[in-house]
Amino acid sequence: MNKKLSIGVDLGGTNLRVALVSEEGEIVRKIKKTSADNVFETLTASIAELAQGEIAGIGLGVAGLIDRARGRVFASPNLRAIEGIDLVSDLNKRFQVPVFIENDANVAALGEKKSGAGRGFENFVLLTLGTGIGGGIIHKGELLDVSAEVGHMSIAFDAEKCQCGNIGCLENYASARAMISRAVSMLEKGQESLLKECCKGSIYKLTPEDIYKAALDGDTLSREILRDAGKALGVGLANLINILSPEAIILTGGLIGAWNIYVQEAIKEASRRAFKDLADSVKIIPSSLGDEAGIVGAACLVFMNNAKADPKR
Amino acid sequence: MNKKLSIGVDLGGTNLRVALVSEEGEIVRKIKKTSADNVFETLTASIAELAQGEIAGIGLGVAGLIDRARGRVFASPNLRAIEGIDLVSDLNKRFQVPVFIENDANVAALGEKKSGAGRGFENFVLLTLGTGIGGGIIHKGELLDVSAEVGHMSIAFDAEKCQCGNIGCLENYASARAMISRAVSMLEKGQESLLKECCKGSIYKLTPEDIYKAALDGDTLSREILRDAGKALGVGLANLINILSPEAIILTGGLIGAWNIYVQEAIKEASRRAFKDLADSVKIIPSSLGDEAGIVGAACLVFMNNAKADPKR
Repeated sequence: MNKKLSIGVDLGGTNLRVALVSEEGEIVRKIKKTSADNVFETLTASIAELAQGEIAGIGLGVAGLIDRARGRVFASPNLRAIEGIDLVSDLNKRFQVPVFIENDANVAALGEKKSGAGRGFENFVLLTLGTGIGGGIIHKGELLDVSAEVGHMSIAFDAEKCQCGNIGCLENYASARAMISRAVSMLEKGQESLLKECCKGSIYKLTPEDIYKAALDGDTLSREILRDAGKALGVGLANLINILSPEAIILTGGLIGAWNIYVQEAIKEASRRAFKDLADSVKIIPSSLGDEAGIVGAACLVFMNNAKADPKR
Repeated sequence: MNKKLSIGVDLGGTNLRVALVSEEGEIVRKIKKTSADNVFETLTASIAELAQGEIAGIGLGVAGLIDRARGRVFASPNLRAIEGIDLVSDLNKRFQVPVFIENDANVAALGEKKSGAGRGFENFVLLTLGTGIGGGIIHKGELLDVSAEVGHMSIAFDAEKCQCGNIGCLENYASARAMISRAVSMLEKGQESLLKECCKGSIYKLTPEDIYKAALDGDTLSREILRDAGKALGVGLANLINILSPEAIILTGGLIGAWNIYVQEAIKEASRRAFKDLADSVKIIPSSLGDEAGIVGAACLVFMNNAKADPKR
């Protein structure tokens, strides 16, 4: 029997990650699978494999909007396979332990707070910079259980429609999807660029890494795309700084690989825009747990909630 | 001796308000003065007049960015007279009681939570809609001690510069200042409008009330100004809904007098833009304490902080 271990699940993106995590936030063992149609079966099998002793519970970080009142996902656009499944009660029935659910970026923030780049801060915002843009907010050392959908804050109220229904969302300017879509559209228009030679000529397979590499090789289009996306990110950072006056903003996700152009530009733009006293004191830094922040944070949900239920423990 | 009373001060706008407030959030006595150059003297005299018995402390709500680490105001653009004055320690020396400081919109949120429209909600955002736009955030029943400068979130990253240094701030589109400035500029260009007959012909004395009255009389320009400002407010509301998923948004300040056009338009726009599941559940309602939310909330700062210092009380 080991009540000091719990299972953290990250159902955030294209991969399913499951880990056995200690109360100190250390990963004991982990499994990574490619999300498939049978997500629920893969998930339960992975949990069963890891949770061989007794565990304190299961924490889930799921991409999508969480219905906290009912412990469910409202809608998970990237994970149609789990829509309609009541993950919390199904896993609770299957494993007979408490199950908690949160948004994937929220648990990543919790993970960074527990044992990552957020350890030294009581108030910070974490941003996941990938295909889309997500966020999580830590205040007074604790996770704010709010939506934190910072990628869907409008920074251009009169511009192009976002797939979420809003107009001019940050995500439409600063995400990997936005960069790729702009690159493809410029290449289709015949713009000269080193990107043409990437991916054996199929521009539809372009990745943010291709753009960053081409930018480092001096490609004008790529540099412009990264800088403009960085500027837009800076607008979002300034908004978050003016609203939440965090001590730090922690950045994670694939795009931080392009730190030297994209993130540097964002930091410059944010400090130009936000209230000077707030901008001067905020630290904008990379995550230290990277892809593993989610499973650590998800597992922490369990310890956190169990401690609240039994404060004498 | 009455430790159950404290002094609440609202140094928010053009008026100085001071009140003696009970622990239940009821105003026992109050003073309202027009802010003058000698704010500090007026303030101490008012406190001395009200605090004749022993008081639990003094709470200050001040327009401006609060330096929480040092209990000071970074900068208070509308209150140059108090810049450089260390209100907290000066008042503490003078009255020998604990003194606490917060942003004026933040204490208004606290006041609405204590005895106003926020009583029934654990998570809400309060917006002050006046010359500028301020905000305060209540989470799990408590005030988030963050800047909450929601008026300075950019909703048009590539537009006109705001006086704060940012570009395209919500305040530039949805505040009273924005409406007046647009009305004046259109009238200067010779646009036909009932507003011409207001203020005995001096368009430079126009108020938001004039615009609202003219709008109700069918004036096209006034209706357009109110509707566009309302739409912009709706963009800001949608951003706050997507980021903070509040149960309610409480609106206060002079502009809510134009509820039927301006706020209604904002609510429509917000529900068009925000995530449907969040927009469906948020209640957008007027404050119930109005101008007095600030003094009530400021006094609550004292009870709140004293309770934290002595949890057995």
